[in-house]
Amino acid sequence: MNDRIRAVALGNDPADLLLQNGRVVDVLTETIYEADVAIADGKIAGIGPRGSYSKAKQVLDVQGAYLAPGLINAHCHVESSMAAPESYVHEELRWGTTTLITDPHEIANVAGAEGIRYMLKAGGQMPINYYVELPSCVPATPFEHAGCVMDAAAMAELMHDEGVLGMGEMMNVPGVLYDDAEVHKKLDLFHSEKRAVDGHAPAVTGKELQAYAASGIDTDHEVMSWAEALEKLRAGLGVLVRQGSAARNLESIIKGVLASGIDVQNLAFCTDDKHLADMRKEGTIRYCVKLAVELGMSPVRALRIASINAAKLFGLRHVGAIVPGYDADIVVFNNLEDLEPLHVFWHGRDAWAEAAGIAPVEPAASLKGSVRPAAFSEETFAVSHFEAGKEYPVIRMLPGDVYTERESIRGENVAVELAAGELYLIAVLERHHGTGHVGLGLLRGYGLRKGAAATTVAHDSHNLIVIGTSPRDMLVAANELVRVQGGYTLVHEGQVVGTVPLNICGLMSSEAPEKLIVALEKIAEQAHAQGVPANIDPFISLSFMALPVIPRLKITDMGMFDVDRFEFVK
Amino acid sequence: MNDRIRAVALGNDPADLLLQNGRVVDVLTETIYEADVAIADGKIAGIGPRGSYSKAKQVLDVQGAYLAPGLINAHCHVESSMAAPESYVHEELRWGTTTLITDPHEIANVAGAEGIRYMLKAGGQMPINYYVELPSCVPATPFEHAGCVMDAAAMAELMHDEGVLGMGEMMNVPGVLYDDAEVHKKLDLFHSEKRAVDGHAPAVTGKELQAYAASGIDTDHEVMSWAEALEKLRAGLGVLVRQGSAARNLESIIKGVLASGIDVQNLAFCTDDKHLADMRKEGTIRYCVKLAVELGMSPVRALRIASINAAKLFGLRHVGAIVPGYDADIVVFNNLEDLEPLHVFWHGRDAWAEAAGIAPVEPAASLKGSVRPAAFSEETFAVSHFEAGKEYPVIRMLPGDVYTERESIRGENVAVELAAGELYLIAVLERHHGTGHVGLGLLRGYGLRKGAAATTVAHDSHNLIVIGTSPRDMLVAANELVRVQGGYTLVHEGQVVGTVPLNICGLMSSEAPEKLIVALEKIAEQAHAQGVPANIDPFISLSFMALPVIPRLKITDMGMFDVDRFEFVK
Repeated sequence: MNDRIRAVALGNDPADLLLQNGRVVDVLTETIYEADVAIADGKIAGIGPRGSYSKAKQVLDVQGAYLAPGLINAHCHVESSMAAPESYVHEELRWGTTTLITDPHEIANVAGAEGIRYMLKAGGQMPINYYVELPSCVPATPFEHAGCVMDAAAMAELMHDEGVLGMGEMMNVPGVLYDDAEVHKKLDLFHSEKRAVDGHAPAVTGKELQAYAASGIDTDHEVMSWAEALEKLRAGLGVLVRQGSAARNLESIIKGVLASGIDVQNLAFCTDDKHLADMRKEGTIRYCVKLAVELGMSPVRALRIASINAAKLFGLRHVGAIVPGYDADIVVFNNLEDLEPLHVFWHGRDAWAEAAGIAPVEPAASLKGSVRPAAFSEETFAVSHFEAGKEYPVIRMLPGDVYTERESIRGENVAVELAAGELYLIAVLERHHGTGHVGLGLLRGYGLRKGAAATTVAHDSHNLIVIGTSPRDMLVAANELVRVQGGYTLVHEGQVVGTVPLNICGLMSSEAPEKLIVALEKIAEQAHAQGVPANIDPFISLSFMALPVIPRLKITDMGMFDVDRFEFVK
Repeated sequence: MNDRIRAVALGNDPADLLLQNGRVVDVLTETIYEADVAIADGKIAGIGPRGSYSKAKQVLDVQGAYLAPGLINAHCHVESSMAAPESYVHEELRWGTTTLITDPHEIANVAGAEGIRYMLKAGGQMPINYYVELPSCVPATPFEHAGCVMDAAAMAELMHDEGVLGMGEMMNVPGVLYDDAEVHKKLDLFHSEKRAVDGHAPAVTGKELQAYAASGIDTDHEVMSWAEALEKLRAGLGVLVRQGSAARNLESIIKGVLASGIDVQNLAFCTDDKHLADMRKEGTIRYCVKLAVELGMSPVRALRIASINAAKLFGLRHVGAIVPGYDADIVVFNNLEDLEPLHVFWHGRDAWAEAAGIAPVEPAASLKGSVRPAAFSEETFAVSHFEAGKEYPVIRMLPGDVYTERESIRGENVAVELAAGELYLIAVLERHHGTGHVGLGLLRGYGLRKGAAATTVAHDSHNLIVIGTSPRDMLVAANELVRVQGGYTLVHEGQVVGTVPLNICGLMSSEAPEKLIVALEKIAEQAHAQGVPANIDPFISLSFMALPVIPRLKITDMGMFDVDRFEFVK
């Protein structure tokens, strides 16, 4: 800590910024007290009773507003917003987040180290603490072809890059439990440097949970219920309470916390996946705080979970509290019910003003040219692939759910049901390396009356998904996404109705957030107008049809996959 | 984490030890629940409902007793017990401490790196986590000659020794605040490796406290009052609530904590200085827990402060909680009121049995021959040093206090008051390097009717202190301590009445604890019999007369020192 900070703390030198007449939310004692805060060289130098500090280059009288530590999003996938990192950070800053712990799992599946480094550079230039947990499961499963394979050696090359904090969610639970050599090479790598290791253990319980925790996993954000939360906390895991756009676990966990009166030291808040429009409307971690307060938690405790708790779980020193020597990352809230940020400071600087002046990093050409399937044609999607007399599996899409059911159809009935609008062709085209792998299957329940839809956002390998009622429309849709190099598109009677280009790896858009939000809303409306029911998100639901870790029947570029049996359908 | 621990957690392999029918004190959630705990390779492998684990090489049915994490003494000076490290550890283990954060400040002042390495070796061989915070202030002040000078370079050489955790209490508050180069070299050294840095800031408040905290100090154990505790917690310092033999700060702080309802995350317990007899009678951290419970704190919260809180403050991972993957350091308490340990496990092993079988490390000859003053004689202590017509300062010793008052006397009255038993000669002889430095002064209030007392325990430089009514008896006392190479001695009419040798650096005894306790009690009784009043500890009070950082008048080998004016009396 330099001399100047001490001189400012002592009142001898002028502060860079003096916040006067604040109410400091002290998340270490869970108390609030009236104070002035003197800031120097990006650090909190001194805190004193009102009027105790007077010398400053800049003074801001906050007139009794609340000074809270900048909020920490303990686990998020920036790519899920579909906005570029800079735009994502803008939305986070808008609501008072000053530290992000991101897992660039999606872009890593497309572009590996190059994608991760782009995220670090683009996010890292913003006035926010932009940390990366290195994706541990690329590809997520051996049942699909992603753009990249990251083994322990590839992780070792990245782990000392600036901004890399620890290891991202370890989804391979069996690999952890039953001694998969490569999984444990990765764990050992991060444990050897005492780095944080994120977990991902949905519904893992009992002895398997004990073994998973004993393997040195630090956190879990896949907690759905209060009982699961308590068991995982007692197993020593930090529970990252998730409130995203789809997964909304906060209410059940926080209700349990309040009813039981347990200590909250190992809870933090996160979003995992949250869409841009939702972020803009309500914020991320600030929204978690607001919900917790509405459920009856004291604001200072909720803010504590949103700040110092996450900092401690991830070993971040000097972040997450308003105390001398810590980074001057401060949100000024109007009050603790509305939680409207009046100002957001990062390292003592006006984060909003600073963020506005930063030009986005230009993604490398390879990141903007990532949709490279082998040649395809109408024949690729032809009904003739389904032979009469044979039985074929059919994915039953369920409204508002990423789970599916497995149904079936006889080959001779495919054309009839397609024509009746009761069945869809669905194809997944490997799009990273031009291998020509194509999975072609059948799906019911999508609702589109005529035409086709396609997306390059396809968890987790992000191949090209095309769904439609006719091979011709599917061809148009697939061609359109190759033309724009990724995104969403909607086709009707051979014509493109609308496209939202996602030019960065087919996952994110360089477009300004307000325009992107409007474009995403418009194409969804168009799809609903073409018949997709209101309780199905036309494109996001599609993205999950290729995720072969969620039951029951899914499709990858390698074919139809029965998740229950954990094998391809022959 | 190795394969076997997972296999035990999964219930596939037999545990090394299975604790059945326990009540687990979960300090992470502050709850207690019934469970069995399976231990393998020194780690907690799995915790499950009663009966869930059955395979084990050894089973212990604890019959409903409480399983708490091993307690952590967050700051202690082993030397203050006057027992060798092995004996000290025995006493700590007796009451359930399994992690010690020690500051070998006393031995470092005598023997520097050699002394510290002896402590690391002797303590480190015991079944306890024996950590060292490297002493930061050797010598403690520039107003005395210690046995060693430890600068930043000397600390750098030691900081990577096994067992070295961080930096010990930084007592040089002005040096921190006003940019002393050597002090900041030391701070930078430990900050560069993100090590814990202990503070020492008695009564430091306001802007000075802000500047001290902003300098990257992590803890403070010198907190006397609740108001001071709250201010320091709000400044981000971990408050190590101290309950030693002399300084007893627990009640005022914990009462404030309970009345205010603040969060306790940054509180831990420590003893700082605690004598062997007190340790044996009541324990150290277990006694803190007991007192806190008696004051009204819930036992699980008090145990939390005594375990995981300290672990987190010092960055100790895998210590301080009963969760899978953590070290199997467990105390079995009969109940949570009496807090009598039934068993203490360290790394899954019976710590009591293991400790009993360990032979003490033999200190090097230099450590056992550390009392090496230059030649002295009766003349050294002669009354003739005080000239008629001159005014001399007199230390007024205050019962039960390490503070003193400053009085004075005219030279011509010295002999008369001495003869009347109202005044004492007090001398401090430099004893490390034979430099011949001697401070000779006067003191009132000790109570000894006739004779002399001497000690080589003399905070912080541990020179040889001799006090007496006659130069002749003082000579006998000084000679006796040179003969036995350190300790306590008491002289009456030219004869040694009793001696407690402290053969290790003149600070600690290799004697068995039970014998040492008896010997210390006996010599104190003898001194009281010779007139030292009951409210003055005959030797410990003496040790503080040479500590030139506590007001108001003290004496070092360089002369009488006025602490208020921070200068020697001319």
